[in-house]
Amino acid sequence: MSTWSRLIRFVPASGSTPVIGEPCDPAQDVGLASFAGDPIEVDTFTGSSILDPGERTGTKDKVKTILSPLAQSEVGTIRCIGLNYLRHAEEVKMALPEVPVLFMKPSTSLADPYPAPTVIPKAFVQDQAADYESELVIVIGKAAKNVSEQDALDYVLGYTAANDVSSRRAQFAQSQWCYSKSFDGACPVGPAVVNKEQVKSIAELKIRGTLNGKTVQESGLDDLIFSAPKIVSFLSQGTTLPPGTIILTGTPAGVGWSSEPQTLLKDGDDFRVFVSHGVGTLINQVVEEK
Amino acid sequence: MSTWSRLIRFVPASGSTPVIGEPCDPAQDVGLASFAGDPIEVDTFTGSSILDPGERTGTKDKVKTILSPLAQSEVGTIRCIGLNYLRHAEEVKMALPEVPVLFMKPSTSLADPYPAPTVIPKAFVQDQAADYESELVIVIGKAAKNVSEQDALDYVLGYTAANDVSSRRAQFAQSQWCYSKSFDGACPVGPAVVNKEQVKSIAELKIRGTLNGKTVQESGLDDLIFSAPKIVSFLSQGTTLPPGTIILTGTPAGVGWSSEPQTLLKDGDDFRVFVSHGVGTLINQVVEEK
Repeated sequence: MSTWSRLIRFVPASGSTPVIGEPCDPAQDVGLASFAGDPIEVDTFTGSSILDPGERTGTKDKVKTILSPLAQSEVGTIRCIGLNYLRHAEEVKMALPEVPVLFMKPSTSLADPYPAPTVIPKAFVQDQAADYESELVIVIGKAAKNVSEQDALDYVLGYTAANDVSSRRAQFAQSQWCYSKSFDGACPVGPAVVNKEQVKSIAELKIRGTLNGKTVQESGLDDLIFSAPKIVSFLSQGTTLPPGTIILTGTPAGVGWSSEPQTLLKDGDDFRVFVSHGVGTLINQVVEEK
Repeated sequence: MSTWSRLIRFVPASGSTPVIGEPCDPAQDVGLASFAGDPIEVDTFTGSSILDPGERTGTKDKVKTILSPLAQSEVGTIRCIGLNYLRHAEEVKMALPEVPVLFMKPSTSLADPYPAPTVIPKAFVQDQAADYESELVIVIGKAAKNVSEQDALDYVLGYTAANDVSSRRAQFAQSQWCYSKSFDGACPVGPAVVNKEQVKSIAELKIRGTLNGKTVQESGLDDLIFSAPKIVSFLSQGTTLPPGTIILTGTPAGVGWSSEPQTLLKDGDDFRVFVSHGVGTLINQVVEEK
C-alpha cells in the first residue's frame, strides 16, 4: 500500500535544493495556490525523486517554487500520443487511428510550472502559430517492456498534467510533429503527481484548458480512443520504458489552430491545464523570445 | 588542433571497463578486423568519453569488444532525418521535403556493433517487415542552440555510421516513424568516430550497405538534400542539442522494403554499413527474438 496520495517536487522556503513532499491539505490546488502566493504546506519525504520518495521525514516545509514533478535527467525521451480524443480527431478532420500514434519530445523540452515562463523561441515567434494542448500524463514508475494491457497499470506510478506546446506552422509545413513540439520549454509538466491508487480508471478523470480565463478545452478522459493500459502496453512492445518515462496521452477538442476564430498563443497569455483528482492546475505564462 | 583523427570506445583485452582510444593503424577498418578476430591495437586516452577524451596515456592496449562510440547515458534523444537522399525519396515515391524531416529514437534504442546482435523483437518478428537503413551520423560535440549554418560545424565533433533498423509494417500502418524505429537495439552505431577535421565536406564521404555480402545501398553523401550544416542549424532553432546528441542523416536508395524483390531482414542475416574516411564497417548480425 502506498504511503502517499500525491507528490510534488519543489524548492522549499527553507533552502535551495529541490525536495519531494505531499501537500498537507488534500483539497488544495497547489498550482492555483502557488500563483496566488498562498502558503502551501508540505509533509516532506526523505528521497529526492518521486520515483523513490522514501519515507516521510516527519517535518513540514513551505513551498517557495513548484517544479515539474520529475527532473530533465529523469524523464529521458518523452512519449506523446497524437489524435487520441474522438472529438479532437473530428475537429482536425483526420481519420481515427487504428493504433496509438506516437511522437516524441527530447528531455530538454521539459519545463516547470509557473513561475517558470513558457517561452516561444524567436525562430517560431515569426510564424505566429504557437498553440496549446492540454494533456493528461502517465508517469511510468518501473521499467516496462513487453507488458500486457492487463498488467500495464502495475508499471504506472501515477498521473499528472502537461501542455504539449506546439508551433503549428512548423508542424504542418512538413507534417512533422517531433520538430514543432520539441523546443526548449515545449513541455511544461505538473503541478502534482497523483498516485494511480487514487484513480480507479482514467476514464473518470476530467481535463480542462483555459486561455486567459476562458475555457477552450474541456473533456472527460472517457473520450480517449486508446486507454492508459492500451497505450503503455503498445509502447512497451520490444521497447523498454525506463522509470520516469512520461507519456502525454493526447489533447481533447478545442486547440487554438482549429478554433473559430483562431486563438493562438501570444506574449502575455495565461494558459492553464486543470486535471481533477488532485493533479491541480498547471499554469503557463507565455513569453515571446525577443 | 585536435589530438586525434578517429576514436573508438571498447572493452580492452586488459580489463572490463570501457576505454577510449585511437587505433594505431590509420588504415585499419576496425569493424572488419573485430569481425575477423584480427588484433586491433589502440593508443589509449585518459578520458572515459569521446566527448572529453583527455590526453594520450602513452600506453597501448588491444580491443576485446568494440562498443558504440557513445554510451546510452550520453546520447539523449536520438535525432533522425527522413527522406534526405534524392534517389531514396524517388524510390519511395515521396515528394521532396522543403525542410529537413525530423523523427526521433529514444536512447534505449542505441546498440553496439558486432559482436552485439541486432535483435528484432518478438512483437515485430510476426510482421516479417524488419528493414535496414545505412546512415551517416553527425556527432554533436558541444551544446548547440540557435546556431547558423555558417557556424554549425563548430558544434560538430565528428562522424560515424548507423543502421536505422525499422519495422516497415508498423511504420506504414499509421505513418509513424518514431514507433517503428524505437525498439531496444534499433540503433546500432559505430565503429569509429572520425574527427570532423578529417572531412572537408561530408559531400566527399561515401556510404555503402551490404546484405549478406551483396551491395544493396551505395551513394556519395553528395546526394544529400540537406547538408550537415543545414541540418544542425535547423534542429538547433529554439532547441538545445546537448553534447553527445547524434543525428542520423537519412538513408540512400536501396532499402529492402522498396527493392525488387523485397529483401527484408531475417534471422541470421549479416548487414553492414560502410562509411569512408576511417569510420569503417558497422556489422550487425540479425537475430529474431523467439
